[in-house]
Amino acid sequence: MLTDLGEAELAEYESVQTAPDDFDDFWHTTLAEARAAGAGTEVVLVPVETGLETVEVFDVTFPGFGGQGIKAWLRVPVGAEGPLPAVVQYVGYGGGRGRAWENLFWASAGFAHLQMDTRGQGSTWSAGDTGDPDGSTGPQIPGVMTRGIESREGYYYRRLMTDAVLAVDAARALTQVDPERIGVVGGSQGGGLALAVAALAEGVTAGAFTTPFLCDYPRAIRITDAHPYKEIAQYLAVHRDRLGEVMETLRYFDGVNFARRAQVPAWFSAAMMDPITPPSTIAGAHRAYAGESALHLWPFNGHEAGGPDEDVLVLAFLASHLRG
Amino acid sequence: MLTDLGEAELAEYESVQTAPDDFDDFWHTTLAEARAAGAGTEVVLVPVETGLETVEVFDVTFPGFGGQGIKAWLRVPVGAEGPLPAVVQYVGYGGGRGRAWENLFWASAGFAHLQMDTRGQGSTWSAGDTGDPDGSTGPQIPGVMTRGIESREGYYYRRLMTDAVLAVDAARALTQVDPERIGVVGGSQGGGLALAVAALAEGVTAGAFTTPFLCDYPRAIRITDAHPYKEIAQYLAVHRDRLGEVMETLRYFDGVNFARRAQVPAWFSAAMMDPITPPSTIAGAHRAYAGESALHLWPFNGHEAGGPDEDVLVLAFLASHLRG
Amino acid sequence: MLTDLGEAELAEYESVQTAPDDFDDFWHTTLAEARAAGAGTEVVLVPVETGLETVEVFDVTFPGFGGQGIKAWLRVPVGAEGPLPAVVQYVGYGGGRGRAWENLFWASAGFAHLQMDTRGQGSTWSAGDTGDPDGSTGPQIPGVMTRGIESREGYYYRRLMTDAVLAVDAARALTQVDPERIGVVGGSQGGGLALAVAALAEGVTAGAFTTPFLCDYPRAIRITDAHPYKEIAQYLAVHRDRLGEVMETLRYFDGVNFARRAQVPAWFSAAMMDPITPPSTIAGAHRAYAGESALHLWPFNGHEAGGPDEDVLVLAFLASHLRG
Amino acid sequence: MLTDLGEAELAEYESVQTAPDDFDDFWHTTLAEARAAGAGTEVVLVPVETGLETVEVFDVTFPGFGGQGIKAWLRVPVGAEGPLPAVVQYVGYGGGRGRAWENLFWASAGFAHLQMDTRGQGSTWSAGDTGDPDGSTGPQIPGVMTRGIESREGYYYRRLMTDAVLAVDAARALTQVDPERIGVVGGSQGGGLALAVAALAEGVTAGAFTTPFLCDYPRAIRITDAHPYKEIAQYLAVHRDRLGEVMETLRYFDGVNFARRAQVPAWFSAAMMDPITPPSTIAGAHRAYAGESALHLWPFNGHEAGGPDEDVLVLAFLASHLRG
Amino acid sequence: MLTDLGEAELAEYESVQTAPDDFDDFWHTTLAEARAAGAGTEVVLVPVETGLETVEVFDVTFPGFGGQGIKAWLRVPVGAEGPLPAVVQYVGYGGGRGRAWENLFWASAGFAHLQMDTRGQGSTWSAGDTGDPDGSTGPQIPGVMTRGIESREGYYYRRLMTDAVLAVDAARALTQVDPERIGVVGGSQGGGLALAVAALAEGVTAGAFTTPFLCDYPRAIRITDAHPYKEIAQYLAVHRDRLGEVMETLRYFDGVNFARRAQVPAWFSAAMMDPITPPSTIAGAHRAYAGESALHLWPFNGHEAGGPDEDVLVLAFLASHLRG
Amino acid sequence: MLTDLGEAELAEYESVQTAPDDFDDFWHTTLAEARAAGAGTEVVLVPVETGLETVEVFDVTFPGFGGQGIKAWLRVPVGAEGPLPAVVQYVGYGGGRGRAWENLFWASAGFAHLQMDTRGQGSTWSAGDTGDPDGSTGPQIPGVMTRGIESREGYYYRRLMTDAVLAVDAARALTQVDPERIGVVGGSQGGGLALAVAALAEGVTAGAFTTPFLCDYPRAIRITDAHPYKEIAQYLAVHRDRLGEVMETLRYFDGVNFARRAQVPAWFSAAMMDPITPPSTIAGAHRAYAGESALHLWPFNGHEAGGPDEDVLVLAFLASHLRG
Repeated sequence: MLTDLGEAELAEYESVQTAPDDFDDFWHTTLAEARAAGAGTEVVLVPVETGLETVEVFDVTFPGFGGQGIKAWLRVPVGAEGPLPAVVQYVGYGGGRGRAWENLFWASAGFAHLQMDTRGQGSTWSAGDTGDPDGSTGPQIPGVMTRGIESREGYYYRRLMTDAVLAVDAARALTQVDPERIGVVGGSQGGGLALAVAALAEGVTAGAFTTPFLCDYPRAIRITDAHPYKEIAQYLAVHRDRLGEVMETLRYFDGVNFARRAQVPAWFSAAMMDPITPPSTIAGAHRAYAGESALHLWPFNGHEAGGPDEDVLVLAFLASHLRG
Repeated sequence: MLTDLGEAELAEYESVQTAPDDFDDFWHTTLAEARAAGAGTEVVLVPVETGLETVEVFDVTFPGFGGQGIKAWLRVPVGAEGPLPAVVQYVGYGGGRGRAWENLFWASAGFAHLQMDTRGQGSTWSAGDTGDPDGSTGPQIPGVMTRGIESREGYYYRRLMTDAVLAVDAARALTQVDPERIGVVGGSQGGGLALAVAALAEGVTAGAFTTPFLCDYPRAIRITDAHPYKEIAQYLAVHRDRLGEVMETLRYFDGVNFARRAQVPAWFSAAMMDPITPPSTIAGAHRAYAGESALHLWPFNGHEAGGPDEDVLVLAFLASHLRG
Repeated sequence: MLTDLGEAELAEYESVQTAPDDFDDFWHTTLAEARAAGAGTEVVLVPVETGLETVEVFDVTFPGFGGQGIKAWLRVPVGAEGPLPAVVQYVGYGGGRGRAWENLFWASAGFAHLQMDTRGQGSTWSAGDTGDPDGSTGPQIPGVMTRGIESREGYYYRRLMTDAVLAVDAARALTQVDPERIGVVGGSQGGGLALAVAALAEGVTAGAFTTPFLCDYPRAIRITDAHPYKEIAQYLAVHRDRLGEVMETLRYFDGVNFARRAQVPAWFSAAMMDPITPPSTIAGAHRAYAGESALHLWPFNGHEAGGPDEDVLVLAFLASHLRG
Repeated sequence: MLTDLGEAELAEYESVQTAPDDFDDFWHTTLAEARAAGAGTEVVLVPVETGLETVEVFDVTFPGFGGQGIKAWLRVPVGAEGPLPAVVQYVGYGGGRGRAWENLFWASAGFAHLQMDTRGQGSTWSAGDTGDPDGSTGPQIPGVMTRGIESREGYYYRRLMTDAVLAVDAARALTQVDPERIGVVGGSQGGGLALAVAALAEGVTAGAFTTPFLCDYPRAIRITDAHPYKEIAQYLAVHRDRLGEVMETLRYFDGVNFARRAQVPAWFSAAMMDPITPPSTIAGAHRAYAGESALHLWPFNGHEAGGPDEDVLVLAFLASHLRG
Repeated sequence: MLTDLGEAELAEYESVQTAPDDFDDFWHTTLAEARAAGAGTEVVLVPVETGLETVEVFDVTFPGFGGQGIKAWLRVPVGAEGPLPAVVQYVGYGGGRGRAWENLFWASAGFAHLQMDTRGQGSTWSAGDTGDPDGSTGPQIPGVMTRGIESREGYYYRRLMTDAVLAVDAARALTQVDPERIGVVGGSQGGGLALAVAALAEGVTAGAFTTPFLCDYPRAIRITDAHPYKEIAQYLAVHRDRLGEVMETLRYFDGVNFARRAQVPAWFSAAMMDPITPPSTIAGAHRAYAGESALHLWPFNGHEAGGPDEDVLVLAFLASHLRG
Repeated sequence: MLTDLGEAELAEYESVQTAPDDFDDFWHTTLAEARAAGAGTEVVLVPVETGLETVEVFDVTFPGFGGQGIKAWLRVPVGAEGPLPAVVQYVGYGGGRGRAWENLFWASAGFAHLQMDTRGQGSTWSAGDTGDPDGSTGPQIPGVMTRGIESREGYYYRRLMTDAVLAVDAARALTQVDPERIGVVGGSQGGGLALAVAALAEGVTAGAFTTPFLCDYPRAIRITDAHPYKEIAQYLAVHRDRLGEVMETLRYFDGVNFARRAQVPAWFSAAMMDPITPPSTIAGAHRAYAGESALHLWPFNGHEAGGPDEDVLVLAFLASHLRG
């Protein structure tokens, strides 16, 4: 059943979220510090033996937030010549980069495919290999939605979004990649990260955000009982006195505010029967998007949205922007 | 939590299932009739435009039970020369062959990969394109477990298992395939079909049955409330008077009886926390297996079993038998 | 809790469903073909030994869609003289005609009671004895809601609704029945069938549709997660490309469109806390009803609606029209 | 799935329950007091207008525990001559006697059918009309399982079982009933009551106890989480200090102890997949049964057990004893 | 997620509930009769050995409805001199007064704390010691919401609300209590009782009703599936013919009608994500409140509302009125 | 229902867990390093204004693992003279120290009561104020059960158990506390911590472990689906290759191994219907306990075990050892 507004109402919906005055300064400083911390650290590629014959896979380590080593896979078609257009992909909540021999779509389609691991997640549905060494500055709900939520500086997503931006830096430094032809993609949390990257990174050509998470917090945390948005509501149910500071922290990490700053052509999608990233929260980000964008609605899907049917559309969208 | 016997008990477990005297005659006749019905019908291959660059995909139609057209995908690595070792894959309950650009593992690993669609399923988690035109001969529970269960002749799985055997015939007829190097694989229902094919088909070199379904009915329908085995228990809860005929029908389609006849080297797996295909039902088939075989137990998994970690092991297993 | 619109909103609600131009032709042709196929096939009555002393039961077989044999029970009060007013009853989703000695209300009330079995169902809550030999023309969700939904010709409900119309033909041919005094009744799927029959059959005097299913698809498949409407949403979640053809097929089988054509006096009911056949979908059909009709709302019930309290009201309603 | 012991283990199972020394005295006194309280109160029959033509229904009020008025329906076949064999039926937990025009099986089969209402229940699935004016002597869990459980005198089931015995007295006083041919029947709570009545009443010829409840408390309250046995476990989870007195009270009301005293031929049934009245608790009563008895096991059913398929068997069983 | 109206809508909401003309007479008579029945019965205090050193506890028995003995705990700070301001507390649905050594907050804060037991409940989450000897006048749903709901005289809450008013009488008679400084408090059912007491009792200075239950029945029983309001909807689903009398009975016991009569300063709270006492039902009572009052909304809580964070606010509220 | 072994089997049960050879060295070094890191850091007490009159509360900060500041509450009876016997209490999974004015039992009973906060938890059911600044060294399941589980050094519980031991050091340094009379108590995770502290700390006189968690991992992670043990099984379902290192890490933190080293008199409890800390896992620790101990079984409780009825027994147990 529909889990949120109908299509006509979605078309009208605007988020009430606003950005704090120092939003851009905050991110400028954050990224500058992270790049400084990682300066001098090489992106390391180690070839992986997978048994595959058409796709070559490398185990990648690049410097992320605080210069900490972040894992990724680089997959490239065997025998490809010259720098390739690239897709940098981010992963959904709870998962990690998985195994080297999974997720062959983008490399099989002729792209250099850099799939970033997610710090401190990588366990509930696909395996990861990267920790979150900074830890929490206060109490938290299991998961990462409230880890460090007392302050913008200590919030988990400050670290993860920084990793995501630096993954693009890393991709651009690879010999296999044409640094002028990079798309960012992801679903759910991966979509939220890709949207932040579209606003914050340099050298991104296009972005595809399928059922993006991390958007429109003032509405999201009130209209669904589905995790992971629910983690925040659970936290506020016990830490009743921290509503103000929590909402203030979240303004620095809301996809609506990233959307207002992103300029590259964008694909958004939402699913009308999705309780996890309810369509209005995505419509809120889409409506705020500064660049050219389209929102694809899947009328009978839940959070899986378009699945393989969306993959092929996103491929066409990215190909049109990256393959010239 | 453990959903069935512990590891020590599994090692001792033997199924009580027995085969009817005319089991072999029944299948001999069934397959002969089906081959006769399909004689003269070509296997049709139509190239599919997928946007992929390393894998070529063909939309396949081959004659199955009753000569009815059964869909499949053939995926081969681009630029492969000469006939390739092949993997014929069957799909889990409710699903279909999916989209052409999904499931790239086997072709990327250098195999000709024929993935058979499942008649009349193909809707709950992946799309299919094949109907089941024969229909039911009596009342049934939603799903296919009790469709036609009044008789061995009208039972749904007589048709589907026949399709599965004829998929091997079809594979062997393809120019892309080396007919002497064919492995059959599948998980859950796909594993149960692969096991039946290992017993019934000609020209199969090895088989991998991951958490196979369709095994050891006398135990399976009593020890789990998980679907789809539960469909049979639900049927018997209303059709209380048909227990005898139902159990008689199922003897012709039980993986334990196929195991007693299969000679090719085999990989079995089961998961200790799986309620869908409880490990004892698989241990029952494994113990009865006539050929060389091993049973891999995943101690903390449910029905997903080894997932990608098992894929790479199965690849190694098949490669050792098919790549020689 | 309320599962749909409130009473005031229900009174205003109109369905957006429309009928295709060839709706009447389609059904005219379908019924003509079915009657032709069954021409020459007798309705067969076999007395059943039940142990009952006040009600006599016959096992009935009549020619349905394609001339296929459809089962029913005929129950008549022992010792009744002359042709009786009759009630033709259809059964809810998943069930069948049950056992001969069940469902004694209508015969005990002095009616000839013909209870039609449901092809290929008859297993989840009451036993049936009739198969659906035509099978599916494509993939489907477990159940019958999407069996053959690719086309109006192959859709399951074309066959079942035809059976239901021909059950009236069969009833009228019985010596126990007065062919000018026939009511059609049913709950849920049975109510949806009775509504179709009220529009399509000849010789029906009145109809009672309690919480009728199969109504107002454009709304029904979006506003509930309850089965069986959900089967269609599940199908469309995987077969995303078939939305157009599915909605087109359903126009030929929507109770709203039957309601626009039915002329006999009608009893509708709906329950305000019913998620299975949400009251607005029924209100949509009721509002469109061409003949005289009333909609009874049960304010605190779920799908069971008025239960025995409704039975006695429906008896009074039918008696007023059939007993004259 | 199986919810309890397997068939072989059931055959061996014996309950540990024992009767207190004054069990018979307690019941002798209880019944004598109740009969004294009701002495001089007539059984009142009021004809009910139902619209039925083959069955006549009377609204019955008879004196139960404390002489309190207990409701029942008497249904008899229209036109029956002379006293009939009778069936006294008790109802399952939560329900009441329902509507006059429901439950036509026994009268249609030629019996006088007295269906007793259940004091203070009659609301969750079928309507009743009788209160429980004595109330509770202490705190309790919602439901009646712990109402007055502090003492044998104040326990709810002392009142209800007394009502059930006096229903037989009432039946025997009716002109429609042959006082020498009375069977007692019931399912679940109704079965537990019928079993108690078989031990305590005079003039009962046979008893049918389908999935009887109220049996083998020491085991029942530990092996299931299903209600209503769970009510007792819930009570003991809070009233941890009352375990001794609760278990002592229950000894006076346990079907195992009634079974040891009942002499009439008996039908027991249990269902292997029933969590509500787990089969071992019934096997415990059956094994203890003093008279001739058989236990029918339904292998794939839950608490519904044999449903209509059992009705017809019970009819045959009772007919053999009551129709001579 | 929000379970009811948003904050703006709540501010506008007015209940449609109205009081019957004889509402005040009914309660005047009820209380007068109860006080007469209990006249001459002492409030009995028995010291309890708890092992505590700062709080002294007495087991209290006072005459409630019908003069029946109602249990309570009196807890006072050790060494307190002279009469203290007092808090009379009522308990949530299903629970009782608990153990003597629980619930030390109010006495530790310097109040005489009288915690009333709840007749016939006291079992699902905390232990009680008081029965409900009056019993039911008709059938009922498990629980107390429909016990005696056929009439205002026999309804369970007539007895319980009378107990609650008489608990204030009892408190005022204690030497430890200053009869001019009494607050009444409670959460959920306890809040509903405190609200009734605020309207009906003499000598109450202030009241705190946290997520009060028993308010605004016409809306409450339609908008939630949570128990215990659901008990009434369940009853009406079976007793379809009793809607009128049920709604009439409830008018005498609805917090909205008590609110219209209560004059003492009041604290109300509601939680925006509470399905058990949905915030609109509380807003309906708050809006109708005759005296000075405030409604505190907890934006991310369920029925637990402010928990310990509310306790300290309620303490400050009561202290300002009682400690003056 | 019983969730684990019966009472007779529990009495026989022995855990298979063993301690690694360097278990004692590991903990000796860990504690020495932590004490060194915190050396020179004062335990800070800040009085808290609570509105209570019989209990005084201090906000405590003491140096825990790595010298990091750990929060606690110190509650003492107002007006107590001289050093008091003390209870150090640890909190269940997900919670924190709560609010200052909660949990008044131990201080009201005359003890100095130090309730330690739990690093990085304190959000799901009671509020905490302490972070876990060390973070994770690898991927993890939401929660803390797998945080840092790759190695004994980085495992979360190395930090938390060290905090718990140092809480006793802190308590012994307080002027309000008699350092020779200290008991450690806790339920669930708090019980597991208290058990570890009983083995590792100096100056503990007695310990009460109610339904202790963190015991007998080899069995616990296989026999329950309840969280938080399930977190480990979930981790191993994805990180299939890390079973060996996970089980090796857990040996250093298993209550069975702490039990083998603890000498102080101990109270254990378990509940027969508890799926969260199944009774056998506790029986395994109890059986291994080196000192004098008793295991109290609650036959009808879940994880709440004895609740307030156990509090008073534990009070008596501790009083007998600490008040002597």
